[in-house]
Amino acid sequence: MTESLVLAARSLGEVTIDLDALWLVVAAVLVMFMQAGFACVEIGFSRGRNAGAVVAKVLFNFSLVTLVWWACGFALAFGGGAWLLGDSGFFLHVGETISAGSPIAGTVTSADTGYVFFQLAFCAVSFAIVWGTTLERIRFVAYPIYGVVFAALIYPLVAHSIFGGGLLGDVGDGMQDFAGSTVVHLTGATGGLAALLLLGPRRGKYGPDGSPRAIPGHSMPMFGVGVLILWLGWFGFNAGSTLTTAGARFAEVALVTNLAAAAGVIGATLTVWLLTRRLDVGMIGNGAIGALVAITAPSGYIELWAAPLIGAVAGALVVVSVLAIDRKLDDPVGALSAHGVAGVWGTLSCGLFAAPRLVDAPGVPGEAGLVYSGSFEQLGVQALGVLVAFLLVFTLSYLTFAAIKALFGLRVTDEEEQEGLDIVEHGMYGYPEQFIVAGDGFGEGFDSLPER
Amino acid sequence: MTESLVLAARSLGEVTIDLDALWLVVAAVLVMFMQAGFACVEIGFSRGRNAGAVVAKVLFNFSLVTLVWWACGFALAFGGGAWLLGDSGFFLHVGETISAGSPIAGTVTSADTGYVFFQLAFCAVSFAIVWGTTLERIRFVAYPIYGVVFAALIYPLVAHSIFGGGLLGDVGDGMQDFAGSTVVHLTGATGGLAALLLLGPRRGKYGPDGSPRAIPGHSMPMFGVGVLILWLGWFGFNAGSTLTTAGARFAEVALVTNLAAAAGVIGATLTVWLLTRRLDVGMIGNGAIGALVAITAPSGYIELWAAPLIGAVAGALVVVSVLAIDRKLDDPVGALSAHGVAGVWGTLSCGLFAAPRLVDAPGVPGEAGLVYSGSFEQLGVQALGVLVAFLLVFTLSYLTFAAIKALFGLRVTDEEEQEGLDIVEHGMYGYPEQFIVAGDGFGEGFDSLPER
Amino acid sequence: MTESLVLAARSLGEVTIDLDALWLVVAAVLVMFMQAGFACVEIGFSRGRNAGAVVAKVLFNFSLVTLVWWACGFALAFGGGAWLLGDSGFFLHVGETISAGSPIAGTVTSADTGYVFFQLAFCAVSFAIVWGTTLERIRFVAYPIYGVVFAALIYPLVAHSIFGGGLLGDVGDGMQDFAGSTVVHLTGATGGLAALLLLGPRRGKYGPDGSPRAIPGHSMPMFGVGVLILWLGWFGFNAGSTLTTAGARFAEVALVTNLAAAAGVIGATLTVWLLTRRLDVGMIGNGAIGALVAITAPSGYIELWAAPLIGAVAGALVVVSVLAIDRKLDDPVGALSAHGVAGVWGTLSCGLFAAPRLVDAPGVPGEAGLVYSGSFEQLGVQALGVLVAFLLVFTLSYLTFAAIKALFGLRVTDEEEQEGLDIVEHGMYGYPEQFIVAGDGFGEGFDSLPER
Repeated sequence: MTESLVLAARSLGEVTIDLDALWLVVAAVLVMFMQAGFACVEIGFSRGRNAGAVVAKVLFNFSLVTLVWWACGFALAFGGGAWLLGDSGFFLHVGETISAGSPIAGTVTSADTGYVFFQLAFCAVSFAIVWGTTLERIRFVAYPIYGVVFAALIYPLVAHSIFGGGLLGDVGDGMQDFAGSTVVHLTGATGGLAALLLLGPRRGKYGPDGSPRAIPGHSMPMFGVGVLILWLGWFGFNAGSTLTTAGARFAEVALVTNLAAAAGVIGATLTVWLLTRRLDVGMIGNGAIGALVAITAPSGYIELWAAPLIGAVAGALVVVSVLAIDRKLDDPVGALSAHGVAGVWGTLSCGLFAAPRLVDAPGVPGEAGLVYSGSFEQLGVQALGVLVAFLLVFTLSYLTFAAIKALFGLRVTDEEEQEGLDIVEHGMYGYPEQFIVAGDGFGEGFDSLPER
Repeated sequence: MTESLVLAARSLGEVTIDLDALWLVVAAVLVMFMQAGFACVEIGFSRGRNAGAVVAKVLFNFSLVTLVWWACGFALAFGGGAWLLGDSGFFLHVGETISAGSPIAGTVTSADTGYVFFQLAFCAVSFAIVWGTTLERIRFVAYPIYGVVFAALIYPLVAHSIFGGGLLGDVGDGMQDFAGSTVVHLTGATGGLAALLLLGPRRGKYGPDGSPRAIPGHSMPMFGVGVLILWLGWFGFNAGSTLTTAGARFAEVALVTNLAAAAGVIGATLTVWLLTRRLDVGMIGNGAIGALVAITAPSGYIELWAAPLIGAVAGALVVVSVLAIDRKLDDPVGALSAHGVAGVWGTLSCGLFAAPRLVDAPGVPGEAGLVYSGSFEQLGVQALGVLVAFLLVFTLSYLTFAAIKALFGLRVTDEEEQEGLDIVEHGMYGYPEQFIVAGDGFGEGFDSLPER
Repeated sequence: MTESLVLAARSLGEVTIDLDALWLVVAAVLVMFMQAGFACVEIGFSRGRNAGAVVAKVLFNFSLVTLVWWACGFALAFGGGAWLLGDSGFFLHVGETISAGSPIAGTVTSADTGYVFFQLAFCAVSFAIVWGTTLERIRFVAYPIYGVVFAALIYPLVAHSIFGGGLLGDVGDGMQDFAGSTVVHLTGATGGLAALLLLGPRRGKYGPDGSPRAIPGHSMPMFGVGVLILWLGWFGFNAGSTLTTAGARFAEVALVTNLAAAAGVIGATLTVWLLTRRLDVGMIGNGAIGALVAITAPSGYIELWAAPLIGAVAGALVVVSVLAIDRKLDDPVGALSAHGVAGVWGTLSCGLFAAPRLVDAPGVPGEAGLVYSGSFEQLGVQALGVLVAFLLVFTLSYLTFAAIKALFGLRVTDEEEQEGLDIVEHGMYGYPEQFIVAGDGFGEGFDSLPER
């Protein structure tokens, strides 16, 4: 051991900053990896002819958000404490000055870039959620256009309002949304709802009499891996939202998160069994996702005992909601239920369960929930926040998607949908050996394949 | 950078606690993700008709263990130093008091919840191991029933005895099982053995003359990804079992773990090549798993040089054991060998290789191994511990599975086994496009699928 | 909370060492997991008959490198500051003494083993890169032979020269390669080029007139998961190369890495669209990989604004390069472009963009780049370093592969290639249900399979 690994003596304050930055970067990395989770979930829920397209979409969308976020999304969301949007940190660079009221106000340090990265990963998760409703029929052109609007305007508006010092932080004693049930998940699901209303269902989803037909995804194993990757990433998502290691609070948030997710699985399993007598794999997995979404808002504000309750209700709610929505709206992955309905429930649950030990502290927004305070006040603040976020995101998203539809068309043709997005938009099947047949015009390249 | 990221000045002691808690939570998260590894391994080793069922099982079982652990498993395993079981921490909440003798005796802090989460992930790994032997034929009903008994009684008994201040910690100078070759892996494999004896082999596994037939799993790629995820998680499993960052001991444990796993792969590769002239992918992967299991017990007690030895023997042992067991018992994933036989070898290897530098310290159980001390004493303690754990787990598990068999039946019918668990228990194939054919009764939903 | 989780009071210096070791081990674990990324990428780009072989290869190769690295690779690369190779640390053990000039000179501590593990993971990544060019036709025997030469000589020569205190660290003010665009990626790709020249293309890759034919890989979903796992691992790769948490510099490196990767995806997407009118999934993914490779060298030396530039150029370059190389050389995964061409570009880009704030500090090699200094000097040093590394690795690799070819043969027979490596070298298909047909001789084992 030489000095090379400990370059210079550091003060306790410096070590503390380095430790906190380490946690934030590790958490950001876990949240970034949720992109793989969304990819696997969407791949699994797609039919095989549309599976490769998901890969291109996820990579492209995460990348687009990264660049837009650095260019202006971060600045607008977190670059100052004005009432509507921030005003500094465009094309962020280390050493510049960020306006007062920003969580990183002052001179930008290396450690601050960890915060920028963490919030970037959040915006990217929200954007990834949008597209679950649009699977198997949307045109690629929608991603870059809506993506720029989303990462440069829609998400920053919501994030600034709740996380970044904006308006909803000032309602009552402040809206409670620890890690973003509303900011991230409801926002994503609401964008997805706007897209879906303009896009319509997949071919054949509804029979001549309007009754829904099951279009099962092609790979439950992929879906399952995706759920477990999301579960993993959520420890960064929620526990990382402490933004500090102080008091080891992140450990409690991690356990709360796991308790809720587990209860969501059990709740969904029992509910789907009671309703359908099938242990539906997709429902069980969506129970986990829904409970993780629900616990996101209260995870930093509740005692351990409330976590299984919130999660179990979310898991049951997701099953009921998926079955109900499926009658009229074709949401192939159940995102409206798992991110939207569960996001609303989670945000509201703060108003029920937020604990005095955790919210009666300086800098923590809001007040204790109904079960402690007997007051509906915080519940009201939460409901208002949900409503404002929903209306804002829905309006802007609907307008944007309507513009895309008018200018470029939002949807592939019926023939293209039949052939699948992989071959139509990406030039090759995601699983060539399963879909290429003689006469496809790929023969010459496939002479080299072993015969089957 | 403002004060917002460093909420308040902390003392060196506080920063140390936060740092240790960070490591424990990161490690716990890695161990939690091993569930994805088990899922992929079992999916890979299953035939395609049973692949979706694995997803439901893993999600459900991890969730069940989480809730039972919080409700009582943790309390019984680690909630105090009594000889048989702990007595405090039921439905654990922050701020309550845990009995003396517990690793977290005193008032429960946020940091302590990291410990609870870490141990929860261990219990869940042990439970996941049980089901490898039962693949492709067990009924879902077995999971919740055995799961409650396992997480509320069987695992706590063993964990308390060895990790939590119980009896086996008092034999001689104490049994050595740093991260649980016996507590976690042998326990899981023993539960699996009990289930297997009552369940019997898969249809067609043994010919009319009793000779075994290969039933290869449907996806070696999935299996391979699973092995690598398990390998990843094991750095949390073993290196996290330092429970502290003091002296950076976790780094050495991580390197020891990697050396052993690598030697296991090489040992298994050479052994299977010599015995069969095939570089069997499953055997190579199981060589890694077996070596990781074996190094789990000694990883905190040995010098670097012993790790490749322990791992290589484990890798060779797993191959020989899989071939031998396969003649009589149908263990589709080789869990009896990779977790059972290798777990025994790893636990015993402490008695051979435990190094004075690492075990002659306060708070470390046991004494130096045979190669240093010339004494068989520690080896005897290890053997006794293995025997006690095996008998305890086997007896309780066998009784539980026998009760399930008597009350509900343990196994699906022959027709259901033929159809596959996915469609029978979960209502849809895990790979619908590969298994649904005309006349299955899924036709109406599948009119919307592109024609092939 | 009791003293058990904080075993003893530590000094600030000790806590600092433990914190830095924690980051290094977490980073090493992320880099180790890149093996799963390489596995998924190669599986995805293979045809289904060669997918299982990738699993065996990745497990075996990572294991081989681990053992050789511990035995002598680390010692030669980092075991002292002599001009050619290090001279201490063979069969490394804790407590021994490492020669002066080594990054861990002096007595080996537990924390130092984290450094050994981190560098081990780097060598293993470099080795994994070699085999992308050889997919679907190389014999397994090549891995152990070239592996020993690679991990015991080739990689240590390059790593010592640039990372370990050797010659290229002394040219000018020192070559800049923060995390190894040249040391790791160009080295791997150069080994792959040598192998490819001796191996030749896959059967049927080139038509009678020499024109290339597409041989698409069998699973873009697997490929996509692989890219995302690599992206994840790269945060350990680059940000971990700070080797310390001091100043939270790792956070800035992580953000730089993400910005570059994102720009690589966008650059590749636009380029492939303009050139082919197809949003080719493989190209988009390789754009991410190429940009990650390119940003590896400059990631610790540039300001945030330069990262998207470097990444976008890399993404575009990869597309053009893959299309150009494919005309003459059959590189199934595009490794020559993504790791070779992009590695060269990344290394050179230091000479353009290295920023005074970051390189004008003690212990940092090289000088500011052209855009700041107006001088071509650093660019010249970078070019020289690339050239030396390429020639060294190519010569030694070509000689080794030529020897393997002469002694054992490098390539399976035409018939074996037709049947696929899985069945030929590993005794079973990676996807048995897709490839086993009646008359294969597997009938008896498959009587037990459900009929299809």
